[in-house]
Amino acid sequence: MKVSELGEFGLIDLLAKMVSKSRDKQLTPWQQLIIGIGDDAAAWHGDASTQLATVDSFIQDVHFSLDNASWEELGWKALAANLSDIAAMGGVPRYALVSLALPAHTKVEDVTDFYKGMIELAQQFEVAIVGGNITSAPLVATTITVLGSARSQDKHILTRSAARAGEKVAVTGYLGAAAAGSEMLTKQLKFDSEATTAFKKAFLRPYPRIAEGQLLVEQGVKTAIDISDGLISDLNHICKASQVSARIEVGCVPIQPTVKTKFGDRALELALSGGEDYELLFTGSAEVIDRVRTTASCPVTVVGEIVADKIGKITLVDRKGKPFNLAKAGWEHFATR
Amino acid sequence: MKVSELGEFGLIDLLAKMVSKSRDKQLTPWQQLIIGIGDDAAAWHGDASTQLATVDSFIQDVHFSLDNASWEELGWKALAANLSDIAAMGGVPRYALVSLALPAHTKVEDVTDFYKGMIELAQQFEVAIVGGNITSAPLVATTITVLGSARSQDKHILTRSAARAGEKVAVTGYLGAAAAGSEMLTKQLKFDSEATTAFKKAFLRPYPRIAEGQLLVEQGVKTAIDISDGLISDLNHICKASQVSARIEVGCVPIQPTVKTKFGDRALELALSGGEDYELLFTGSAEVIDRVRTTASCPVTVVGEIVADKIGKITLVDRKGKPFNLAKAGWEHFATR
Repeated sequence: MKVSELGEFGLIDLLAKMVSKSRDKQLTPWQQLIIGIGDDAAAWHGDASTQLATVDSFIQDVHFSLDNASWEELGWKALAANLSDIAAMGGVPRYALVSLALPAHTKVEDVTDFYKGMIELAQQFEVAIVGGNITSAPLVATTITVLGSARSQDKHILTRSAARAGEKVAVTGYLGAAAAGSEMLTKQLKFDSEATTAFKKAFLRPYPRIAEGQLLVEQGVKTAIDISDGLISDLNHICKASQVSARIEVGCVPIQPTVKTKFGDRALELALSGGEDYELLFTGSAEVIDRVRTTASCPVTVVGEIVADKIGKITLVDRKGKPFNLAKAGWEHFATR
Repeated sequence: MKVSELGEFGLIDLLAKMVSKSRDKQLTPWQQLIIGIGDDAAAWHGDASTQLATVDSFIQDVHFSLDNASWEELGWKALAANLSDIAAMGGVPRYALVSLALPAHTKVEDVTDFYKGMIELAQQFEVAIVGGNITSAPLVATTITVLGSARSQDKHILTRSAARAGEKVAVTGYLGAAAAGSEMLTKQLKFDSEATTAFKKAFLRPYPRIAEGQLLVEQGVKTAIDISDGLISDLNHICKASQVSARIEVGCVPIQPTVKTKFGDRALELALSGGEDYELLFTGSAEVIDRVRTTASCPVTVVGEIVADKIGKITLVDRKGKPFNLAKAGWEHFATR
């Protein structure tokens, strides 16, 4: 059945039922919820902790193609990108609002699959989907808003603007696999099934570093961002916001091993500029980062340091400290390539 | 200059500066704000009042045409639709997040005009624009999220689900002018300048009934919705959510006078089904509605009553109580016309 046959309000009813079935009344956001899907606005009981809000849009043939991603994967990824922003603040995601723009010929099953993917991730992170909006459009566009909060009233949040010269720059996990997945899908590259699965999963089912973001707060980190545009580009955001510059030792960058094997010389570029890995990039003293490394359940790698130079300047150096050149810095919308 | 020349991050910087200039540090949302535009998420100090969240998307050539609306008007209207949802909950709008999808050839000036319109309205209602997202897309699509709260911790909120049989149904203001404006612009109808101005303003610069929503709370109203889809369609939403039905006396519907003059026999249809007037539709006892009428600074008109009949059924009757037929019920996305 097409969404045009079910109609806007029929579709909203159907999705509201899916969400209602998925809710777990034991969880804080559902307990605090007063009104979910189906009124003019969602409503819940507020509290005095620091509140967080972020929004992200995914546009057909800009961020994704229906040719190489399932609707379930799209639902997962669209929400994951938002949760990652909350992770980068060291917060706890609580509520999500989902705005969908869909062509009238979209299959109802595709929309419910989108919700399936989203709900699966929402359940893992105890997020309540509480509202949204559905509209017709010539293409598929999704905009998800996630509201969250600091873990408790006495917790600070992570910002982009607290980096200081002398601090180390570190990342969680491995980089480059999401970009490898994107290239593999768009250029129809062929790899063995293990690599294919790993790249596809990295690109379409990223796992937001919520636990790690909160761990950073616990261990005294002040500055973080999630890697959505690419390591260099996102480090540049930190440097501009903090009015500092940074040096990256390219040999230290934790390139995802399969990316290294399959992409050879280009692996570093994918790791530095590819983006969408949704790992956390953060700064702190050597001691703070050591504490993070010993307590985190994922790899934590120091890739460089914050220096006092031209604001926003990112210098790449090799193991000997010599300048290293890279063609492509990172993702920017409207940029001509 | 095109947005492709300025780039995503240059554009964000420019818009952040516009918003920063417009802020008034005396106002609560700005006072409570910890982080605005430019980090992974916006952050502010929470409080224990009931929190509200709503989202609305506007898509080029579905909700608006760049041929007959200025970017400034679009900015105003996109935000107004969201504020109207907060009004329908009887709440106070506080924060807005703005997601813009734009073709690369969009002029920077158009985007700043969009922000001008939005900021003008935001300032009138003491709303802080604190974040968002910009992405390239083949068409213009805007998605605004507004966060708000009950006016204070002891205030209830208005819902769609509290209507009871025997209550009166009332509306604020006059209906039909927004639909008249939409028709005038899309069908290039010609009217005298006074009518043209009135219709265009109603359609492109609706004024959200924030003060009136809060007044409804004060006077003991429990049930409200804003008229975005049309009186019949929105009353149907209330009836379904409240599991009741309603009767509208068509002769009582407050048709906007110029619509009556210019559209004659079709005026009633525009008032009942046109939508986008963003007036408040609410229910309450005769006494409660009398109190609202005497305290409100806008017209308040009783148009019918809630009855116990088939859930969701809306019956139109004339002055003698006889059934009245109308072809078109209201706006629904994906509906074939």
